[in-house]
Amino acid sequence: MPPEPRPVPPAMPGPSVTVIGLIGIPEVRVGDDLAAILLASLEATPGALPLTSDDVLVVTQKVVSKAEGAIAHLEDVVPRPEAVAFAERWDRDARQLEVVLREARRVVRMANGVLITETAHGFVCANGGVDASNVGSGSGDVVTLLPVDPDASADAIRAAIRDRHGVDVPVIVSDSFGRPWRWGIVDVAIGVSGLLPIEDLRGSPDRDGRMMRSTIRAVADELASAAELALGKTAGRPAAIVRGAAFTRGEGAIGDALMPASFDLFR
Amino acid sequence: MPPEPRPVPPAMPGPSVTVIGLIGIPEVRVGDDLAAILLASLEATPGALPLTSDDVLVVTQKVVSKAEGAIAHLEDVVPRPEAVAFAERWDRDARQLEVVLREARRVVRMANGVLITETAHGFVCANGGVDASNVGSGSGDVVTLLPVDPDASADAIRAAIRDRHGVDVPVIVSDSFGRPWRWGIVDVAIGVSGLLPIEDLRGSPDRDGRMMRSTIRAVADELASAAELALGKTAGRPAAIVRGAAFTRGEGAIGDALMPASFDLFR
Repeated sequence: MPPEPRPVPPAMPGPSVTVIGLIGIPEVRVGDDLAAILLASLEATPGALPLTSDDVLVVTQKVVSKAEGAIAHLEDVVPRPEAVAFAERWDRDARQLEVVLREARRVVRMANGVLITETAHGFVCANGGVDASNVGSGSGDVVTLLPVDPDASADAIRAAIRDRHGVDVPVIVSDSFGRPWRWGIVDVAIGVSGLLPIEDLRGSPDRDGRMMRSTIRAVADELASAAELALGKTAGRPAAIVRGAAFTRGEGAIGDALMPASFDLFR
Repeated sequence: MPPEPRPVPPAMPGPSVTVIGLIGIPEVRVGDDLAAILLASLEATPGALPLTSDDVLVVTQKVVSKAEGAIAHLEDVVPRPEAVAFAERWDRDARQLEVVLREARRVVRMANGVLITETAHGFVCANGGVDASNVGSGSGDVVTLLPVDPDASADAIRAAIRDRHGVDVPVIVSDSFGRPWRWGIVDVAIGVSGLLPIEDLRGSPDRDGRMMRSTIRAVADELASAAELALGKTAGRPAAIVRGAAFTRGEGAIGDALMPASFDLFR
């Protein structure tokens, strides 16, 4: 048998990847300087510094939205009749549904108590990313919205890290999305800066020398999911460094990861 | 302002998670003792041993299928007319499509060159998990099928590790699945042993003391995605240890993670 061809893979990972949950991040409030808070948490977290060229910083959407004021006060919201009817039938908050509908470019499904919309950014997700839990003490009537421009949110954090530490660390803003056909949520990327959210290996030969026709790694989503494993859901850790993963640097945008409706069989 | 309630989270992660890609795994062939191969690779990989109670072993589907002989030889396959017509229209291999249709319990979508089926296990995925790339040198006409019972595949590996090392390490069999609405594939769990694939936090209070109504962590899928970051796609590393992640031990089955059709809005 001839020796196997061993083409250099497009992104050769190191032998190990480490996810470091950042500590010392206080409750984030509207108007807070999130980049400054994250820089302080990098100082406070053992092992986070020095930053390396193998690092990616993952920040969860909730603290980004809160810092940017991407929230809605439900006491100000007058729900439309459609929202009231759906809320009554399925035991939901009509005002929150109204906020979701206002944030939506299109309703994808509204049935079985579930409201799935396409947001202005192009994300298709439950409740348009509008979220009521963990918004902050004494804020029972406040929901977070998705950041207006999550790539720009990631850009700003990346620039602040580069200014302070002289290292260009890619940044991902993550959120928890459900998926059709499977229970449960996983963290995915909703904003990126400094990396390619998807890595197209379709032109690369695999280990057999065969061209891989349909292999596109959604690496930003996998980085977001890996970060979640160090964050937990209620532990109050909204950011993590992922160190040593295989990814490709570049000026990517989250739109690169979204399937246009023309290719989509489920919209 | 009153001090914030800080309930103990249901799964408090450690400050960091490490993913260790196992090295020294040769090309796996039909009939190989995969558990023995994995045990040897644990010995060969710096830092993998000693195993701890915080470890999960993630093994990719392809080596499991190959070891178990879950493959099909395309030269033996006579495609049905429907497969021939679809293959001609979309420049695909009719014999591979035939294999996908034989493995399917139901066709979910067959359009735009994409064949999405529900497998006998209940997975909804592109090409029913039938995969042509990286099957092994000189095997251009061989495809891998999904393992017949991926939970049992995971059970067997877990038992072998327990026998050798006296540590009960949960095992996940992973595969790369696409998702509606987003480009690219992410690794998810298709078989589990020793952990709960989904973690239901709906009854747990969040940091505000509010009950989280819709938070189910798909932790096995996140573990699979994290492992992929240390494996790369063409680097020939089919298994990884994830150490220190937040997960819940238990006798889970992958069926726990699959949404019944009655709840599903996209089937």
